[in-house]
Amino acid sequence: MRPLAGRLDLCSINTATLGYQAPIEETIEAAARAGFGAIAPWRRELEGRSAAHVARRIREAGLEVSGYCRSTYIPAADQAAFEANIADNRRAVDQAAELRAACFVMVVGGLPEGSKDLAGARAQVLEGTGLLLEHARAAGVPLALEPLHPMYCADRACLSTLEQALDFCDILDPGRNGTIGVAVDVYHVWWDPRLEGQIARAGRDHRLLAFHVCDWLVPTRDLLLDRGMMGDGVVDLPRIREWMEQAGYAARVEVEIFSQDNWWKRAPAQTLAVCAERLQSVC
Amino acid sequence: MRPLAGRLDLCSINTATLGYQAPIEETIEAAARAGFGAIAPWRRELEGRSAAHVARRIREAGLEVSGYCRSTYIPAADQAAFEANIADNRRAVDQAAELRAACFVMVVGGLPEGSKDLAGARAQVLEGTGLLLEHARAAGVPLALEPLHPMYCADRACLSTLEQALDFCDILDPGRNGTIGVAVDVYHVWWDPRLEGQIARAGRDHRLLAFHVCDWLVPTRDLLLDRGMMGDGVVDLPRIREWMEQAGYAARVEVEIFSQDNWWKRAPAQTLAVCAERLQSVC
Repeated sequence: MRPLAGRLDLCSINTATLGYQAPIEETIEAAARAGFGAIAPWRRELEGRSAAHVARRIREAGLEVSGYCRSTYIPAADQAAFEANIADNRRAVDQAAELRAACFVMVVGGLPEGSKDLAGARAQVLEGTGLLLEHARAAGVPLALEPLHPMYCADRACLSTLEQALDFCDILDPGRNGTIGVAVDVYHVWWDPRLEGQIARAGRDHRLLAFHVCDWLVPTRDLLLDRGMMGDGVVDLPRIREWMEQAGYAARVEVEIFSQDNWWKRAPAQTLAVCAERLQSVC
Repeated sequence: MRPLAGRLDLCSINTATLGYQAPIEETIEAAARAGFGAIAPWRRELEGRSAAHVARRIREAGLEVSGYCRSTYIPAADQAAFEANIADNRRAVDQAAELRAACFVMVVGGLPEGSKDLAGARAQVLEGTGLLLEHARAAGVPLALEPLHPMYCADRACLSTLEQALDFCDILDPGRNGTIGVAVDVYHVWWDPRLEGQIARAGRDHRLLAFHVCDWLVPTRDLLLDRGMMGDGVVDLPRIREWMEQAGYAARVEVEIFSQDNWWKRAPAQTLAVCAERLQSVC
């Protein structure tokens, strides 16, 4: 396994970790100053700016882009809304291309308002991702399907396991040409009895596009915004990173922490420093 | 699929649904008055009482016992604590036998304090359940492994999917002699892409011992105590019940709702009436 001590260049900071307290230009500078090799920005941070401008600032700071967050949810209550979601995602893929993002992170969405049709929502995700894939291929941006923790199945992502995400990849890209794969976030998958085997499968099929770390806190006080800093929870991070690297993953280790009551209340520079220290000591 | 309208005798009330507001004797009377055919009591309700006394009250009320809740968590930080957990569960199995419970519900526990060794915790669950199985067989009480939602993996049950629970059953009971099976609770498994197939597998192997219903609310405000009343959430309950019954499940449909800020604040008789109505109209 790659040692991370002294190798923050192998690491990336997902800007959500800093709670969107500063404009993206400042966040880019802070990430570079802290020694990170890459950054993963969110679409909201590009609002009112051109992607070209942000891309230039990132390059000037010496950073790469480990991923661009994230897709508009796909499932919709009617065809027009479904198509609008895909069109929106095409525009986001274009931004990802301008940013030279290593992947476009797909949080696929849950059940449409008022629906209990889980199989239908999943079918919409498969169809919608297929519609987006050709555009992504042309733009040169791989799509990274991110299975989310099952507790988000209803409202954020009905793609709930790594196996399911890989099954979707196989249907959409039987040739395994690298245009679609998965984002593995420990927060979402650490509990999965099939995790080790599915990471190995993803590696064999060249599907490992991103690796996100944080920690699962006990107790967890909020379903969405109470993720822990690496080392503060119960996830065996080195074990999962070892599975990733044994499967051939050689890209960035990206920190992504949603933490309304703790890390988002701290100064970004402090959070960056703690992320940097923990990446090198406990991941 | 069995119609439930007019057939509350096919239904059971898990006493947790009523928030433990009344002593078990009153809860038994209330459940019988509301028309339920069975009840699922908790160990805390038997404290200070003999199981024989409670069993007699249940029989006199004309109720059966769909399950007895629940096991002491198995994984422990040291061998002595592990053995104490198994001994504790043996005593609970004896109570379940006196109650003539259809099964002893096993919520297996998560990571021992301070541990990140998920594989180790799961190995303890397998070993501990094996140790308990012989006692349960002698007592005539089937063990029902209950996979819990992955959001409880750290602190309540490292058994996270129906498939994993069935894999454990196969290891412990390759002869499929009916002494161990699963409790399928929609709250824990509704999201699982493999659910339909695993329910069918469980049915083929005579492992379907219990079926619990409630609903998944959007939003869910608390990881443990914000379950919804059937019909108030997003779970397609008839679909899952159909899968159960197609797989051969012919026992009770049991309501189990943990709801600190809603149902637990209401009078038990009112909650029972709403449960009865929803069982007959939306399940």
